[in-house]
Amino acid sequence: MKDTESPPLEGITILDLSRVLAGPYCTMILSQLGAKVIKVEMPGTGDDSRAFGPFSNGKSLYFSSLNYDKQSIALNLKQPADREILEGLLNLADVVVENFRPGTMEKLGFGWETLHAKYPNLIYGAASGFGDSGPYSKRAAYDMVVQGMGGIMSMTGQPDSPPTRVGVSIGDLAAGLYLAIGILGALHKRSQGGGAVKVDIAMLDCQLALLEDALPAYLCLGEIAQPQGSRHPEIAPFQVYTTSDGFIVIAAGNDHLFSLMATALKRPDLLENHDYTTNALRRAHVDQLEGDMERTLRKRTTKDWLDLLNTAGVPCGPVNSVADVAKDPQIAARNMIVSIPDPVIGNLQVAGNPIKLSGVPDRTDHRAPPNVDGDRAAILSLLREAKPDRSAKGNYVHA
Amino acid sequence: MKDTESPPLEGITILDLSRVLAGPYCTMILSQLGAKVIKVEMPGTGDDSRAFGPFSNGKSLYFSSLNYDKQSIALNLKQPADREILEGLLNLADVVVENFRPGTMEKLGFGWETLHAKYPNLIYGAASGFGDSGPYSKRAAYDMVVQGMGGIMSMTGQPDSPPTRVGVSIGDLAAGLYLAIGILGALHKRSQGGGAVKVDIAMLDCQLALLEDALPAYLCLGEIAQPQGSRHPEIAPFQVYTTSDGFIVIAAGNDHLFSLMATALKRPDLLENHDYTTNALRRAHVDQLEGDMERTLRKRTTKDWLDLLNTAGVPCGPVNSVADVAKDPQIAARNMIVSIPDPVIGNLQVAGNPIKLSGVPDRTDHRAPPNVDGDRAAILSLLREAKPDRSAKGNYVHA
Repeated sequence: MKDTESPPLEGITILDLSRVLAGPYCTMILSQLGAKVIKVEMPGTGDDSRAFGPFSNGKSLYFSSLNYDKQSIALNLKQPADREILEGLLNLADVVVENFRPGTMEKLGFGWETLHAKYPNLIYGAASGFGDSGPYSKRAAYDMVVQGMGGIMSMTGQPDSPPTRVGVSIGDLAAGLYLAIGILGALHKRSQGGGAVKVDIAMLDCQLALLEDALPAYLCLGEIAQPQGSRHPEIAPFQVYTTSDGFIVIAAGNDHLFSLMATALKRPDLLENHDYTTNALRRAHVDQLEGDMERTLRKRTTKDWLDLLNTAGVPCGPVNSVADVAKDPQIAARNMIVSIPDPVIGNLQVAGNPIKLSGVPDRTDHRAPPNVDGDRAAILSLLREAKPDRSAKGNYVHA
Repeated sequence: MKDTESPPLEGITILDLSRVLAGPYCTMILSQLGAKVIKVEMPGTGDDSRAFGPFSNGKSLYFSSLNYDKQSIALNLKQPADREILEGLLNLADVVVENFRPGTMEKLGFGWETLHAKYPNLIYGAASGFGDSGPYSKRAAYDMVVQGMGGIMSMTGQPDSPPTRVGVSIGDLAAGLYLAIGILGALHKRSQGGGAVKVDIAMLDCQLALLEDALPAYLCLGEIAQPQGSRHPEIAPFQVYTTSDGFIVIAAGNDHLFSLMATALKRPDLLENHDYTTNALRRAHVDQLEGDMERTLRKRTTKDWLDLLNTAGVPCGPVNSVADVAKDPQIAARNMIVSIPDPVIGNLQVAGNPIKLSGVPDRTDHRAPPNVDGDRAAILSLLREAKPDRSAKGNYVHA
């Protein structure tokens, strides 16, 4: 039996052929859960994102924020010697991850069917724009393309503004999260003797999975979601309001919270107004309610209102910049910013691991993001020590 | 050995005490992976989200889109008889999921420490606004609160617009996704003999984990991310452009794609312009580049440009409404809309499972979203048949 303090994926090796965002984000999460991640990069330039800003002393923070704690080996997959090394690593790994266009791995001779025949216990995780099937399968896609195609952009923004992107690359991030879920599901299946599978994640599919009730609202009722600024489409008050010195979020999601809020604002009239007696009525009169609430909220500062409403138990918060949230004491208490010594950047600071497990400490053995091929010697030595027959590995059950 | 066609979580039972969005979204994903989900609801009104619109024939599509394929039993956790039923279900389950404020389960007598002592193999998955620790731990939070606090709202919107919400509840959805990852990690740990853990997910932590390079850009360089409309902060051309009849997304993320695009637009001058020779230069001249490209793009329709650019291999796409994407042939080919017969709604249509596994068909045995307590008899009969000693269950290994 393993130590109960061990991270869940201790002993799991991920061979990571992915680049840029969706794949590396997935393998970063698996690394946070304790997996060993070996990054296979193109000789020379390596992962495309090494060239993406912002840069600190010439090193990409974009790349660094996704690839700390990983090892790197550069392989030219058209050279026999390097292909042989890759075969050795595939033999050693529990999971291979890639985010090429569908068909690329097949052209290289490392497609799922081939690998599954050679390495029957190897799990294969793939993320692409549109997945392995369907009319767009072979098309390239980037985050912006699926944000546009998948409908989320049509629901984001002010009612009269041009199309607005979600401020982060939610097309890639959602695919990375779903790929991690698929791989972990596949690991569980393998541990139960169900064999290894290929996980096929399409960025566009994942956008559909984020649409909530907007999809059934169209399909069942013909209603088409529209951008609503900061408002929730179904709940009120549930939006950003203006104060004397800025903004405040108030999310009084039910009658009880609405009543607490009216009391905290010293506005008993809100509770007597027949336009506001249910959530449905409040949402129907959302413009009027906004004006009514801001009449009071504009008289004091955001900080004053946050103190009052938090004391009253009303869900509320500031509209923080990234700088504000980075300084928040809750973030520090949760270990959500980690510092990693880096020879180029100095003190690399990135988001911590949001998955907190009782009795399992967050990883502290952080490694700086690797140089291209920076771990070649260690990886080759790992290969030499590896047992030739991976079926002898103990990390899954033959039932 | 299980059938290789079995879904990964076949045989896993989830006891789901969660309500509204983050918890139910997580258990929906686990259900799509094959787990059996038993929803424990308050007698009478049940899950709060049953009262959230939009409604179809009086039934909530918000609730329905998250809770199909689940069973429901109503329990009053202050009544001894119902508490005894819950104990039976806890004894039977592999995982319990809840999204109350921290401390609520302890007050009910079902906190992690208590449950772990009684049911040592039970995994406990919790999502809350701020997690089990830190100064805000006991505060309530809803999606809007963490969208505001976590920084994503400060990066979303047009440069001059008021604070803009991500069009979906990304605060809840991200927490649901991370909770699913944590639970699957915990299942793997248990299967390796590492025991059961509590997974503690904070919605705010998950927002930090979505900020990409914006967090290190502030922490390492002092740069504070700003809303940029539809533009990517680091890459150009990578945004929405105006055509003769609407909009188009073009994501030419590297020099090669930029060259393909210029050729497809019959604009060789773009390649000769020294302002556009690298991505960094293109991003620095992003306003000028937008004008330069739109001079050509405004001459033809979105459909014309999509045909031309797709043929040329340039990543591009439309800005679809939810109605547009719902009709897209790629979505149909990927089985990303599923129809579920429902006695009230008729034909309930919701997003399909984005996790496609080779050799494992998507679930087709869909059940309508349950009524409150709708499966009481079946669940009680399951309890009567269950082995009294859950350690006799075969789905984990004692090494």
